[in-house]
Amino acid sequence: MIRFGLLGCGRIGQVHASSIAAVENASLIAVADAVPAAAETLAAKSGAEVRSSDEIIAAQDIDAVIIASPTTAHYDQIHALAKAGKAIFCEKPLDLSSDRAAECARAVKTAGVAFLTGFNRRFDPDFSLLQRKLSEGVIGRPELVVITSRDPAPPPISYIETSGGLFRDMMIHDFDMARFLLGEEITEVFATGSCLVDPGIGAAGDVDTAMVTLKTESGALCQINNSRRAVYGYDQRIEVHGARGMLQAANQPEHRLTLATAPGFATAPNKAFFLERYAPAYRAEIAAFVAALTDGRAPDPGIDDGVQAQKLADAATQSHHLGKPIRL
Amino acid sequence: MIRFGLLGCGRIGQVHASSIAAVENASLIAVADAVPAAAETLAAKSGAEVRSSDEIIAAQDIDAVIIASPTTAHYDQIHALAKAGKAIFCEKPLDLSSDRAAECARAVKTAGVAFLTGFNRRFDPDFSLLQRKLSEGVIGRPELVVITSRDPAPPPISYIETSGGLFRDMMIHDFDMARFLLGEEITEVFATGSCLVDPGIGAAGDVDTAMVTLKTESGALCQINNSRRAVYGYDQRIEVHGARGMLQAANQPEHRLTLATAPGFATAPNKAFFLERYAPAYRAEIAAFVAALTDGRAPDPGIDDGVQAQKLADAATQSHHLGKPIRL
Amino acid sequence: MIRFGLLGCGRIGQVHASSIAAVENASLIAVADAVPAAAETLAAKSGAEVRSSDEIIAAQDIDAVIIASPTTAHYDQIHALAKAGKAIFCEKPLDLSSDRAAECARAVKTAGVAFLTGFNRRFDPDFSLLQRKLSEGVIGRPELVVITSRDPAPPPISYIETSGGLFRDMMIHDFDMARFLLGEEITEVFATGSCLVDPGIGAAGDVDTAMVTLKTESGALCQINNSRRAVYGYDQRIEVHGARGMLQAANQPEHRLTLATAPGFATAPNKAFFLERYAPAYRAEIAAFVAALTDGRAPDPGIDDGVQAQKLADAATQSHHLGKPIRL
Amino acid sequence: MIRFGLLGCGRIGQVHASSIAAVENASLIAVADAVPAAAETLAAKSGAEVRSSDEIIAAQDIDAVIIASPTTAHYDQIHALAKAGKAIFCEKPLDLSSDRAAECARAVKTAGVAFLTGFNRRFDPDFSLLQRKLSEGVIGRPELVVITSRDPAPPPISYIETSGGLFRDMMIHDFDMARFLLGEEITEVFATGSCLVDPGIGAAGDVDTAMVTLKTESGALCQINNSRRAVYGYDQRIEVHGARGMLQAANQPEHRLTLATAPGFATAPNKAFFLERYAPAYRAEIAAFVAALTDGRAPDPGIDDGVQAQKLADAATQSHHLGKPIRL
Repeated sequence: MIRFGLLGCGRIGQVHASSIAAVENASLIAVADAVPAAAETLAAKSGAEVRSSDEIIAAQDIDAVIIASPTTAHYDQIHALAKAGKAIFCEKPLDLSSDRAAECARAVKTAGVAFLTGFNRRFDPDFSLLQRKLSEGVIGRPELVVITSRDPAPPPISYIETSGGLFRDMMIHDFDMARFLLGEEITEVFATGSCLVDPGIGAAGDVDTAMVTLKTESGALCQINNSRRAVYGYDQRIEVHGARGMLQAANQPEHRLTLATAPGFATAPNKAFFLERYAPAYRAEIAAFVAALTDGRAPDPGIDDGVQAQKLADAATQSHHLGKPIRL
Repeated sequence: MIRFGLLGCGRIGQVHASSIAAVENASLIAVADAVPAAAETLAAKSGAEVRSSDEIIAAQDIDAVIIASPTTAHYDQIHALAKAGKAIFCEKPLDLSSDRAAECARAVKTAGVAFLTGFNRRFDPDFSLLQRKLSEGVIGRPELVVITSRDPAPPPISYIETSGGLFRDMMIHDFDMARFLLGEEITEVFATGSCLVDPGIGAAGDVDTAMVTLKTESGALCQINNSRRAVYGYDQRIEVHGARGMLQAANQPEHRLTLATAPGFATAPNKAFFLERYAPAYRAEIAAFVAALTDGRAPDPGIDDGVQAQKLADAATQSHHLGKPIRL
Repeated sequence: MIRFGLLGCGRIGQVHASSIAAVENASLIAVADAVPAAAETLAAKSGAEVRSSDEIIAAQDIDAVIIASPTTAHYDQIHALAKAGKAIFCEKPLDLSSDRAAECARAVKTAGVAFLTGFNRRFDPDFSLLQRKLSEGVIGRPELVVITSRDPAPPPISYIETSGGLFRDMMIHDFDMARFLLGEEITEVFATGSCLVDPGIGAAGDVDTAMVTLKTESGALCQINNSRRAVYGYDQRIEVHGARGMLQAANQPEHRLTLATAPGFATAPNKAFFLERYAPAYRAEIAAFVAALTDGRAPDPGIDDGVQAQKLADAATQSHHLGKPIRL
Repeated sequence: MIRFGLLGCGRIGQVHASSIAAVENASLIAVADAVPAAAETLAAKSGAEVRSSDEIIAAQDIDAVIIASPTTAHYDQIHALAKAGKAIFCEKPLDLSSDRAAECARAVKTAGVAFLTGFNRRFDPDFSLLQRKLSEGVIGRPELVVITSRDPAPPPISYIETSGGLFRDMMIHDFDMARFLLGEEITEVFATGSCLVDPGIGAAGDVDTAMVTLKTESGALCQINNSRRAVYGYDQRIEVHGARGMLQAANQPEHRLTLATAPGFATAPNKAFFLERYAPAYRAEIAAFVAALTDGRAPDPGIDDGVQAQKLADAATQSHHLGKPIRL
């Protein structure tokens, strides 16, 4: 039985608490949040205790801790948990600075604790099956990868201002997915973006629409396109092309009805956003973490995957600002 | 080179004239119509001469004649053409009376002339491929066949009144398709219908909505459903289920665009009606007739197929009136 | 909080226990099974007590009882529970005899207890949405309904022998669905069937492939087709056609990947069987029962729906044996 | 009646001859080819005369000439035809050199002759409908455009060697499509490519796999991905994302059957290559040219569109070689 502590009782913390309840061999012992009411509500619902962050980090009755706190708290929490010998599950990004993220990686490795970076999309049933089929060679090596990733609507400007920018906040998931699928490191990044959705985003120094091209050592190519707005629901698609064929992962509609009327055939919009779309992925992510800890294996994706994705996000941000490709 | 005469220059006659122009080894020599202007217009467009029906039937420079005249004229024209030794392509139905249709079959066989019954749907590229895959055993023997066949809108009441009723006028195509797919004769017919689309159709003694169940000697089952109205376009689908799988032929949309907006994903309605949907089938039908004549093979479907489909239509009409299944 | 007892700890009983755990305002107090080990295993997993059926029926600390026992036990359990004033959730069929099912209905009404017949498919998110759109008039009144329902593989012959036959055991779900969608009572049933899948089923006096046509008072028509074998997975589709359009509920694939290779595009088979396909329906069914009890509303579908579906199954069985339609 | 001459009787010349036969108000008077047998065969089939190129250019009985000769001949033929006052339909590319293409444009404008650049894809029914819906504002202004364009198999190395390279030979169609859809000029091009399909292509100094990012003045972004090999058939898709939604044009399958077996659902590969996929487009292209000439309108796309697409192809080639984006 893996005994969990949870740092951060916001939306994503609640999702993880619910996954722990559903997964075998896992129990939630204690939760902490800077807002006491948030911790108390989740504690009541989950049967866990409310403790302070420090108490959770130091607790003898806790094996693993989920970091679902604001990004700014990650650095200290990772260091403290590594020192305390706890297994760590940390939401992305590790830190807005790649250098600080790399420091976290060193601390984790020095301590030798298990670490999973919360790239939930790797655990999406369709995406993980796609990656498995790729690794089995069903279509040969990836040659062209196209990742479409569009949020339903932009976040508040206040969020944008502290997000690190679209490439670090939103596209980081796609960078990780590209690495996951390509199966080799990326050597070149070209990024370009525009502010087409909300002028306020531009005023905050960010873009809301972006395209990135990635290239690997072997010459495989990947295109990512992002928008902060998709009126037909959360748009999350992957396509990989190889010598023997193509694999595509489709969007998930809200339902599977078709209505045929005089104008034609109508089907549902996509599931609304990540909590709906990736609900099974969040659960599978916790299950994989628990299984790795139970079996004594290193969780995957590990902290290095978190660091690498951030390096790509940094390179994309730089490429966009300089107007030229960045070599890694 | 097969030299054609055409009896009847209405809508379907014009389609056949156009097919002859497009098919190798075929030329249209002469056309006839009770309405002189119709014949003249088509003659001018196609480069054929205007002649009388009798002249076409007797002509030495004509090898094959297409009967695209009103159903009431078929009986005499088939007999005259058989006597004159012409190859015959006759639109369905052969005659509203199965007995008279059987007489036509006898006359054709006595004369030994080639004959193709115009069941155009057998030549639809998807349906003919489906039948070929069936006959290759891709899914095993047919066990369940579901035929969906719905017109976009009902014809005028005046047409209904002389049509012989839905089972003979509209569902006859589906009876032929059932025979084509099942590959064995049908031994039981149960038909039921309602007037739900237009009360005028009921007042004319007909139904506009119908379901039929067919059973073969070996126990294979087939369901047909017809409606005289489908607001989303001509609805023509086939599904066959067997021990090793299922084959489905989908509808044909007007275009292949998808529009995704806030309510969801929208695609095109079906092609409007039979002239649009079965355009390639009409051309393939003439090509198959010409190829059979050129090669000295019997055209398929022959006149017996026309007679059998009418017997099924009669049985369905009777089943509907008596409220019980009819054994054949 | 609705406190539940569970009679029957087999596969479906376990599904309901899991649903109770997931639903708000519900707890599972006690479970019973003729096989003690089955009850003990489920009790250990769910945190409920093991009790005898009689103890559960008589218990003061139980508000509602789920009957997931063999069909032969339903009659006595329904009567005993009604007498004990318990709310009842009973799996279909109520009883293999419609007369005995009607006796159950009388007992339930006399006692005035809440009753839900376990027609899980009414709670499938797509099917219930389809029915809601129908009832909102999106396509007008239903005119043609086509229900496709095919199991992946036949059950053991021993199951077939005590099942009451395909129409009562398998198609009963489709009869209920037809009633749910048509929104009016069915007045005529024509059924025909064959043994095409397994000769052993025929030897046991049953069919494994069947088609039924239903007609309502207003003339709406419904076709149902069943097979005990579909190699591409559980096949559960619904189509409703009306004056203003068509509604279709598609199958649910195992995943949403597409693999394109030289032979073409390949997608997943359907979900394997009812436990996978209707997992959300089972949960929604318990949630609806709990909500009805909590709000003091009569659960829907009630016991009369169970009785009506069995009458249709009886009529279909009779129609198949007599070879003619049955009027209700 | 527009009287046509045809320069070049190869595969694409034959397609155009067939289109002229099918289009109203057009007739093919004469054909020419460096290989006499090619001209004679097409002349026999089409009813046109064989003439020399010079005779066609000078002919008094010819209004319009289709240039379907090798690219190296275009420059001289365009100049001669412009001087002769003929309307010109020229296959892409105008010339491998943008400068020489621009000279052609000047000659055409000086002469004031009608000119259509053979970007057949603009006339594809789905793509032209997509563009029309875009121009009607159905999804707002284009923000993200994704163009997927993959040939089924690479051409011979001998073809590659004189093709001008992938960006000029293959992607030029996509550059024109991007301009057609974006509705404004492109200001930045970033191109990258690899040799992953056939090492012989790399040895010939070309790439066979490429990705390009385009940006417009207003900040709209476009991604193009090309491969010289797609084993599942010719892959030609377009997607445009805007503030109010997304438009997608799907591939065209060889047929519309679905085969469901134990591994899942299988549909057809795409149509094999451009002659099959764009057959309706080729016909519509000639029809549009004839209609423009008949009505006295300038054909669209004109020669400037041909020049602009080549400038983009040049910029992409340069970007790929320099490893940086090119500003236009």
